[in-house]
Amino acid sequence: MEQASTDRPGTVSAHSGDACVIGVDYGTLSGRALVVRVSDGAELGTAVHEYKHGVMDTTLAATGEALPPDWALQDPEDYRDVLRQAVPEAIARAGIDPSLVVGIGTDFTACTVLPAMADGTPLCQAPGLAGRPHAYPKLWKHHAAQPQADRINALAAERGESWLARYGGKISSEWEFAKALQLLDEDPDLYRLTDRWIEAADWIIWQLTGVETRNSCTAGYKGIRQDGRYPSPEFLAGLDPRFADFARDKLEHPVLPLGARAGSLTAEAAGWTGLPEGIAVAVGNVDAHVTAPAADAIAPGQMVAIMGTSTCHVMNYDRLAEIPGMCGVVDGGILAGLWGYEAGQSGVGDLFAWVVDHATPQSYEQEAARRGISLHDLLSEEAAAQPAGAHGLVALDWLNGNRSVLTDHHLSGAIVGLTLATRAPDIYRALVESTAFGTRVIIDSFAEAGLPVTELVIAGGLMKNGFVMQVYADVTRRPLSVISSEQGPALGSAIHAAVAAGYYPDVPQAAAAMGGRLETVYQPDPASADVYDRLYAEYLLLHDYFGRGSNEVMHRLRALRDETIAEEAGQLGSVQ
Amino acid sequence: MEQASTDRPGTVSAHSGDACVIGVDYGTLSGRALVVRVSDGAELGTAVHEYKHGVMDTTLAATGEALPPDWALQDPEDYRDVLRQAVPEAIARAGIDPSLVVGIGTDFTACTVLPAMADGTPLCQAPGLAGRPHAYPKLWKHHAAQPQADRINALAAERGESWLARYGGKISSEWEFAKALQLLDEDPDLYRLTDRWIEAADWIIWQLTGVETRNSCTAGYKGIRQDGRYPSPEFLAGLDPRFADFARDKLEHPVLPLGARAGSLTAEAAGWTGLPEGIAVAVGNVDAHVTAPAADAIAPGQMVAIMGTSTCHVMNYDRLAEIPGMCGVVDGGILAGLWGYEAGQSGVGDLFAWVVDHATPQSYEQEAARRGISLHDLLSEEAAAQPAGAHGLVALDWLNGNRSVLTDHHLSGAIVGLTLATRAPDIYRALVESTAFGTRVIIDSFAEAGLPVTELVIAGGLMKNGFVMQVYADVTRRPLSVISSEQGPALGSAIHAAVAAGYYPDVPQAAAAMGGRLETVYQPDPASADVYDRLYAEYLLLHDYFGRGSNEVMHRLRALRDETIAEEAGQLGSVQ
Repeated sequence: MEQASTDRPGTVSAHSGDACVIGVDYGTLSGRALVVRVSDGAELGTAVHEYKHGVMDTTLAATGEALPPDWALQDPEDYRDVLRQAVPEAIARAGIDPSLVVGIGTDFTACTVLPAMADGTPLCQAPGLAGRPHAYPKLWKHHAAQPQADRINALAAERGESWLARYGGKISSEWEFAKALQLLDEDPDLYRLTDRWIEAADWIIWQLTGVETRNSCTAGYKGIRQDGRYPSPEFLAGLDPRFADFARDKLEHPVLPLGARAGSLTAEAAGWTGLPEGIAVAVGNVDAHVTAPAADAIAPGQMVAIMGTSTCHVMNYDRLAEIPGMCGVVDGGILAGLWGYEAGQSGVGDLFAWVVDHATPQSYEQEAARRGISLHDLLSEEAAAQPAGAHGLVALDWLNGNRSVLTDHHLSGAIVGLTLATRAPDIYRALVESTAFGTRVIIDSFAEAGLPVTELVIAGGLMKNGFVMQVYADVTRRPLSVISSEQGPALGSAIHAAVAAGYYPDVPQAAAAMGGRLETVYQPDPASADVYDRLYAEYLLLHDYFGRGSNEVMHRLRALRDETIAEEAGQLGSVQ
Repeated sequence: MEQASTDRPGTVSAHSGDACVIGVDYGTLSGRALVVRVSDGAELGTAVHEYKHGVMDTTLAATGEALPPDWALQDPEDYRDVLRQAVPEAIARAGIDPSLVVGIGTDFTACTVLPAMADGTPLCQAPGLAGRPHAYPKLWKHHAAQPQADRINALAAERGESWLARYGGKISSEWEFAKALQLLDEDPDLYRLTDRWIEAADWIIWQLTGVETRNSCTAGYKGIRQDGRYPSPEFLAGLDPRFADFARDKLEHPVLPLGARAGSLTAEAAGWTGLPEGIAVAVGNVDAHVTAPAADAIAPGQMVAIMGTSTCHVMNYDRLAEIPGMCGVVDGGILAGLWGYEAGQSGVGDLFAWVVDHATPQSYEQEAARRGISLHDLLSEEAAAQPAGAHGLVALDWLNGNRSVLTDHHLSGAIVGLTLATRAPDIYRALVESTAFGTRVIIDSFAEAGLPVTELVIAGGLMKNGFVMQVYADVTRRPLSVISSEQGPALGSAIHAAVAAGYYPDVPQAAAAMGGRLETVYQPDPASADVYDRLYAEYLLLHDYFGRGSNEVMHRLRALRDETIAEEAGQLGSVQ
């Protein structure tokens, strides 16, 4: 076995030998560490650590206190535990000498954001604050800051803030400013104690290096940082006078490009991980965005769709366009030197799971059990056996709201065309198709803005479902490429680690060597595609009718639901 | 025990003693006989005979020949078997001397119609014709005559036929003329051999009495007989020159009012039934219509909703109005001397069964099994536990098409407002509510035409579901009355038998003595009714959007479905 090279050439060379990097992917419920060979991206070993506290969405673990609806917190110690548990375990499984490891990179869910003290201590770990819900990291899917997001959007529209169009016209309640404003509104003392308002993506780098850094991806997509500036003090003061200096005081920090070296592994972090002290640590990154280099799909026009419970679409382009309903466009948001575009669908695999869990009768469960296959596989098989159009259905895929291009989380799903002959595989297929139509809307929106998608690359768990993939090929009339790795985000983080460690001059060269995809894995069937053109026309009609204000029934139904439930809760409260 | 009175007073008297009548209700799969005491309507005994051939909708029993899609035939010998089996068994269960029986009345599904020879022999029982599908009775739900119905409607509209408005603007493919025209189109030889084209409702009376009669209910609602006339020879010739004399040759016959004596029981029929020869036989009638007197709800403004797999609404009024989308208005169609109105919803209990059978996961089935209750009961219980509006859904109840007021069987169902939190009881409740909204549309249409519904009376199997009933009370903002008898149609037939036998001077007096209902069994809850007013407004918006041409997506989806399935069948055919 060769020793890791100690000189760091501009491109990988024979000297890199068996040099390895670690990619750590921080997900919603667990973190995964992956050991990757620098020279060719070979994945040598991996391990997962489940967060002890998971998602705190009903009670705060420290006190047992009930949390309000729509809250979702995490415990930052769980993030450190991934370093302590998963990294050494992955090294052990890879069977390599830890001294071969030359760098570590990470990616995180986003916007997952926390209040910290000036030294990086999370407020929830500061003396006496463990019982304060607002002291904890707010997970990306913490949705309780919608009133604050509404205020931000209303004021931004009123003032004509130029950055608003970079986010498709709407700032999400999931992002840094809405969550910070909620903190200010609801726990102003804690807001004052907050020295730094920091993405978990950056906080974990602070833990590894001992120094604060900020990365261009989250600063841009989640922090409303555009053209080098955060929203102005005047704008922030309009939200709340106490909020005027929020960005200056709690966010402002030099922003590093993706793939840059944030610093070196501290002795303490070396102790946690068993890795050599002083190795390179890449700046923070985000799970979806880091997947594009893992698929070696970072050229302009290569759209990577990371398809799981939801879908995130990332694509680079060499020019700026402001597209209604995209999640964001950020200079260097995916790759330094290009404009990174992000779009998304807030419910995809979640919808298919909904059919499996809540709308499929016992007979199918028994059949799946008898054959020893999953209910997903059985429904996919039966759905795949139908010709396109045979179920007579069209659905709107908004059971979890709509992210792109309507940016409206208060929309809901619809199914049209039901008959007494409709069966679970029909509904399953209709929902799969509806999510593919949703993807086509996004692709079409980019094309209309002058940014055509030249290649559609699939990553994420759903890439394993051949039926879903074929529907997407047929609906989009495109051959689908599929990422080679099953650990796209962790591999993407490892690629950034290799660049930070100086083994490659930039992310594209590292991606070419270490990432990859299979091209034209699924070919569109012209006959099905013709049928889908007709169904897509129906989808668009309903999309605009329900989604663009012709009939606000979905909003009214939701308001009625919330009102009714609140009234009942009130009545129960007054009785008890 | 007193003997049956032999004199027949104008109103029932002590002389009626223990005189009894038989009501026979011919349903889709079986016939039921009910022994009823003339004096007070007491139900003394009942028996059911399942048709040996049931519904022939895939193959013709006599030959095993496959039937085309949408066909539904029956074997008339099954109807005679009900007389042979169910009537004696009901008498035996009642424990009465058959000599006490003074009359027999029947009701039938409609339009169930058959070709017969001049002596009443069904063509399928004529020598050599048992293998010809068109020789058999076409059951009400035989839906293969839609092309013929389309021709009838187009020509009637073109010629401005005055009778068209009496049927809400559309003649159904289920009715006598469409089915006869299909016979002419597809088996003209058999059409020529048809001396009489007769409702099974009238044919069974012919079997009991030996003489042909026609009743005002089926002649009006299913036979397009208005103001004493069938459609003109000119109109019929416009459909097909060979069809010009159809009504004159094969339908025309004196039409008797409901409750009239059609004749006397023949010796042969007395042999089948064990009843005394010569007793009164009432003219034919229809299951839904005959239920109104069974509920003693035949005054103007009393709407009886017979709620089962589908719902039929019948109501008398003293004046004529032509209401878009009603099934028909017929002078004396329900009760001699009043205009009888009929409307309908083509899918009601069928929709709830669809949720139970095809959209409810295993966990509910297990819970129901564990508690020893039906899945309907479990879903009803969970749905009932929600406040109105809490599920955030609104549905269109057209999974089996729409009869009133849109008269469009190619519409389909829709559910709007789905989220990942939607569960089977939510969908169950939303569909129950949607059928109640459908009923409210019908009630409102009558009111707008100047025929207000003053009392809503429920009959049929769904009256046992307290949750469904409460939703209907809340949605319609009306107290609900419920028919007293669980055998509404058979009791209604028995009431007509008592009138035909002369024990009462007319149906209203017989209904007052023998029929009945419980008033105000369900009271609307004002708070729920307020919520339903809002949901009903949403229902109406979607009703008109999808049902009145704003978006013909449901028709296009159906056409695409049929086209796709036909293409695949063609491809399979060409391969095999």
